[in-house]
Amino acid sequence: MERKFSYEELAAMNPKEFRSIVRRGEFVGTTEAACRGYAQGNLAILPKDWAFEFLLFAQRNPRPCALLDITEPGDPHPKLVAPEADLRTDLPKYRVWRDGKLVDEPTDITAYWRDDLVAFLIGCSLSFDWSLRASNVKFRLVGIYTSNIECRPAGRLHGHVVVSCRLVKNGHDAIRAVQVSSRQTATHGPPVHIGDPALIGIPDVHKPDIWLPPEEAGKLQKPDEIALFWGCGVTPQKIAVESKVPFMITHSPSYMFVTDRLSEELAIL
Amino acid sequence: MERKFSYEELAAMNPKEFRSIVRRGEFVGTTEAACRGYAQGNLAILPKDWAFEFLLFAQRNPRPCALLDITEPGDPHPKLVAPEADLRTDLPKYRVWRDGKLVDEPTDITAYWRDDLVAFLIGCSLSFDWSLRASNVKFRLVGIYTSNIECRPAGRLHGHVVVSCRLVKNGHDAIRAVQVSSRQTATHGPPVHIGDPALIGIPDVHKPDIWLPPEEAGKLQKPDEIALFWGCGVTPQKIAVESKVPFMITHSPSYMFVTDRLSEELAIL
Repeated sequence: MERKFSYEELAAMNPKEFRSIVRRGEFVGTTEAACRGYAQGNLAILPKDWAFEFLLFAQRNPRPCALLDITEPGDPHPKLVAPEADLRTDLPKYRVWRDGKLVDEPTDITAYWRDDLVAFLIGCSLSFDWSLRASNVKFRLVGIYTSNIECRPAGRLHGHVVVSCRLVKNGHDAIRAVQVSSRQTATHGPPVHIGDPALIGIPDVHKPDIWLPPEEAGKLQKPDEIALFWGCGVTPQKIAVESKVPFMITHSPSYMFVTDRLSEELAIL
Repeated sequence: MERKFSYEELAAMNPKEFRSIVRRGEFVGTTEAACRGYAQGNLAILPKDWAFEFLLFAQRNPRPCALLDITEPGDPHPKLVAPEADLRTDLPKYRVWRDGKLVDEPTDITAYWRDDLVAFLIGCSLSFDWSLRASNVKFRLVGIYTSNIECRPAGRLHGHVVVSCRLVKNGHDAIRAVQVSSRQTATHGPPVHIGDPALIGIPDVHKPDIWLPPEEAGKLQKPDEIALFWGCGVTPQKIAVESKVPFMITHSPSYMFVTDRLSEELAIL
């Protein structure tokens, strides 16, 4: 019983309302329009046996994996950023990984839940997009890519940094975008690269290997647009694949968790 | 064979030189003057069995416990911030804790080292003091205290936030100090309190329960001075006591580890 919502209806919702329509299966879309101003999170869930290494990994790779919240083993409620939420039902779409292979993409993970699972919520760039808009920075998200930048390893975990790319209107807006996102350390912080995508192993910004926003299909970069690349919370999914993690649950790219915290509430200065 | 060094001699040293005189036992003092501009670190070492909970604790309490580096189990070298250093010998003074009790205060912990120990380096406010001085903020460090602010617990770890207090010359300098330290997220970031110490459970700033700088003995707050309180990396020592941690090694307050990273290198913006 999925329902239709306009951009404005989604943007005007508060996080509790939004999560309840997701929980009831009434919204199964991507979340870029949801809850204007609120921080969104990427999800990575691992068994306790892997939790220390994953936390160490996140700590060593704060651009792709800045942490918003970490649950106690077996607890599906993110106490710091949305205590009433349930991480098993409140995201529109999940991915289940076994031995580094994608085995399921459900809209609810209750059936997969176990007492030894630890959930990590990782800041998402859809959060600072609200701050970019509030600063009148003109940009468009053009894709999510695997870069050739290696993460700092931690124990059994290693792999490449996943990045998102925004094309920003001109030099002035690009500088402002660096400033604004640098304040948002909980949601990736400053870009990891600016300019030529080939320098970080991306042959063509218009052909992302991970995710292409439907509205960007067939569009090209304009001469005065500047490409800015940020660390992306899809990185743990790449880590699951490259490190062959026995069991991990994540969100599906762009189907995020919406927290109760405003993006500006989490900013530095 | 301890030697005498002037403030300027210590401030002009590079971190490698400074750590080598510490390692040879030629300097056993507090480190506030050491290596102008370089970030310093608090130390907490725990067995691997406690490492996940401690990392979770630090992640949840970033004001007192922002992390600079975490070693692999058994490895005494902090790969990210000073790969050539040895955490067993390169701090002037350590503390050894058993079941929450201080049992030794050695200048070398080689005899205590084990293959299952994980070392955490936590940012230290002596780092952003260099940035305050560079910004011409006039201040004096007047003590280290146990506050009544409770840390967010993690597993078996709980306790109160330890804070340091600086008296800042006037309102203008206090505002500048908030701005400058907010950029230094790796070394405590912004203050946790400003003004009346009683509001965070400190009866008298001139009678610190943890550490009084010798030069501050008998001095009083001037009418135009404003008290600013920052989270302090001595907090894990309070946690060791309050949570009765079976085994932990820390630095001794104000006898810090000097990293190879400049304080400004770690700053946001």
